[in-house]
Amino acid sequence: MENSETKTLPKSWAMVGGDGPRSYAQNSSYQRGVLVIVDELMDEGIKETLDFKSPCSDSSNMCTFRIADFGCSAGPNTFLAMEKIMEAVEQKYHAQFQNSPPLEFQVFFNDVTANDFNTLFKTLPSYQKYFAAGVPGTFYGRLFPKSTLHLAYASYSLQWLSKVPEEVVDTKSPAWNKGSIQCSGTAKEVAKAYSAQFKTDMDNFLNARAQEIIGGGLMVIIICGLPDGILMSQTVAGICIELLGSCLIDMAKLGVISEEKVDTFNLPLYFSSAKELEEIIKNNEHFCIERLNRLNHPMMKMKVEFHISLYRAVLQGLLEAHFGRDDVDKIFEYFAKKLAENYDSVFNAANHQHVEHFVLLKRNIN
Amino acid sequence: MENSETKTLPKSWAMVGGDGPRSYAQNSSYQRGVLVIVDELMDEGIKETLDFKSPCSDSSNMCTFRIADFGCSAGPNTFLAMEKIMEAVEQKYHAQFQNSPPLEFQVFFNDVTANDFNTLFKTLPSYQKYFAAGVPGTFYGRLFPKSTLHLAYASYSLQWLSKVPEEVVDTKSPAWNKGSIQCSGTAKEVAKAYSAQFKTDMDNFLNARAQEIIGGGLMVIIICGLPDGILMSQTVAGICIELLGSCLIDMAKLGVISEEKVDTFNLPLYFSSAKELEEIIKNNEHFCIERLNRLNHPMMKMKVEFHISLYRAVLQGLLEAHFGRDDVDKIFEYFAKKLAENYDSVFNAANHQHVEHFVLLKRNIN
Repeated sequence: MENSETKTLPKSWAMVGGDGPRSYAQNSSYQRGVLVIVDELMDEGIKETLDFKSPCSDSSNMCTFRIADFGCSAGPNTFLAMEKIMEAVEQKYHAQFQNSPPLEFQVFFNDVTANDFNTLFKTLPSYQKYFAAGVPGTFYGRLFPKSTLHLAYASYSLQWLSKVPEEVVDTKSPAWNKGSIQCSGTAKEVAKAYSAQFKTDMDNFLNARAQEIIGGGLMVIIICGLPDGILMSQTVAGICIELLGSCLIDMAKLGVISEEKVDTFNLPLYFSSAKELEEIIKNNEHFCIERLNRLNHPMMKMKVEFHISLYRAVLQGLLEAHFGRDDVDKIFEYFAKKLAENYDSVFNAANHQHVEHFVLLKRNIN
Repeated sequence: MENSETKTLPKSWAMVGGDGPRSYAQNSSYQRGVLVIVDELMDEGIKETLDFKSPCSDSSNMCTFRIADFGCSAGPNTFLAMEKIMEAVEQKYHAQFQNSPPLEFQVFFNDVTANDFNTLFKTLPSYQKYFAAGVPGTFYGRLFPKSTLHLAYASYSLQWLSKVPEEVVDTKSPAWNKGSIQCSGTAKEVAKAYSAQFKTDMDNFLNARAQEIIGGGLMVIIICGLPDGILMSQTVAGICIELLGSCLIDMAKLGVISEEKVDTFNLPLYFSSAKELEEIIKNNEHFCIERLNRLNHPMMKMKVEFHISLYRAVLQGLLEAHFGRDDVDKIFEYFAKKLAENYDSVFNAANHQHVEHFVLLKRNIN
């Protein structure tokens, strides 16, 4: 069931583990914020589109309702989201079938193998109304047996590509992304390479889930994206990442880190437009789009330390694998200093926020 | 799904994690040894007793064959055992239904929440022919939805009780086990308390599994035990543990560790006779005994360091929780010295080896 992609995924591809001050668990309040907005959408969407064919009976397998969170990381966010989903499913079930025996829920927490599952398990709510399991491995391949999931959820995970497109770190390619560490959107060839990788990854994700989700089953996707016609470089996140990239270049010039390492570093991160996302899903043909909403969840102006902690919880693993542990500390010190110096211009210049796309899909019945 | 027992289980209730020189992963070759003996028994047993009702079809859920290892720890042993089981199941399936589509396997690795699942996941064979999941929690309660498992496996785990019987560390009880850290078998009241706890635990285990395993599904249990009529104190394992207990007493007398701590320390470990085990299973009524074999797997005379490493991988967590990290180092140093001094008498005096029971159960069809 392992595919070649699993093997090429860097080990660092995980949020910072544990529950210490630098962990993702302690630094994902921004991501948690969106849950409040998403709550109602998800509740409504599940109730309107989920359709139980028959009530629960001991002989039928429908007694067990299986949910998977693809890219759960280790924070409390995944537990909150799973609770919300179960609540909506239960209400719908009981509305459809009064007085039938309760559903049993099995919840699968998936993330890459390097994820801190030990912390995830230790912080599971002490009273769970579900049977919990952890599933290690990349969601760009198969992770579950055929037709065994009833609802899939992926929040803030699909903007992470399976890999950096090779061309953008290839000095001989017209897509070489010299001077930037992201898909800022301004260089056409770079954007093309990132967009192609995103399409490949999304296709792999949708095809794998199409196998695993039963006909009529649902999938909720919350994914970082861009308003139509807006470039990454015009958003707060894009400007912050550009600033981080400029720190690396400065530090290379000062001889603190190697220039070659800076040139070969790019983030496997892609923010798509709703149009692009819609096209990929429609072409895939396994799922029908029930909802596609744009969530406005502006990055608040918080203290510099808050922003740095957030970026560190998310990017430390990737930077450490590329530059080494010592240099990562220096990079974030430098980044904090530069962000403080440019604070007002970063947050005022960006009139355009990136957005989150909320997508509710239903697996077609073959 | 959490029960009160889960909460009272000490956090230390896990083999030593990681894959370093002191880990269970590196120090479980004794436990692995039994796999070679068990192989044929398991292969034969599965082929003779497993009965597929219908071939795999896309609409039926029988496409997925679910196996769970209860108390898997983190070593390579669990992977080897799961492979062997799948091989036997596949062969039986294809013998029954030629040319039918292949089964898909989902394997659940269960152990207590404190188990090192991160290492377990990182050391999963790079090519798996199954979908892997980790399930944290005590197997003395429910861990899976109803009727979702086809085969359960528990190897070297059920001799670990859910807790030390309270009476044996209660100075006011006639079962107070002063001067010993185990159920040596010589003190009647102590043996009675341990035996009662074993019965309660086994009942809880069988009742939980009876809910989770489908009618006709199988359960393989490999468990440390005693030949009928033999006391723990007459076996190598019993003599070794008695020696460890005497180290604690010596160290308390020398003032290295507290006497009160020694008095309140007992191992939650119980080696049962085949007769006792058989009685519990028969009284339970959910399972039918297909095989009950005695495996002779004598503890070889190895270097003192080998024995100490083995005991440390298994007992360190428990000792550390009770005595603290620093004292554990001292305890094992002292134990190594004392075992070396008594080496010949320990291994020669014990004509009676403990045994492993191999049990194959079939879930009754209600």
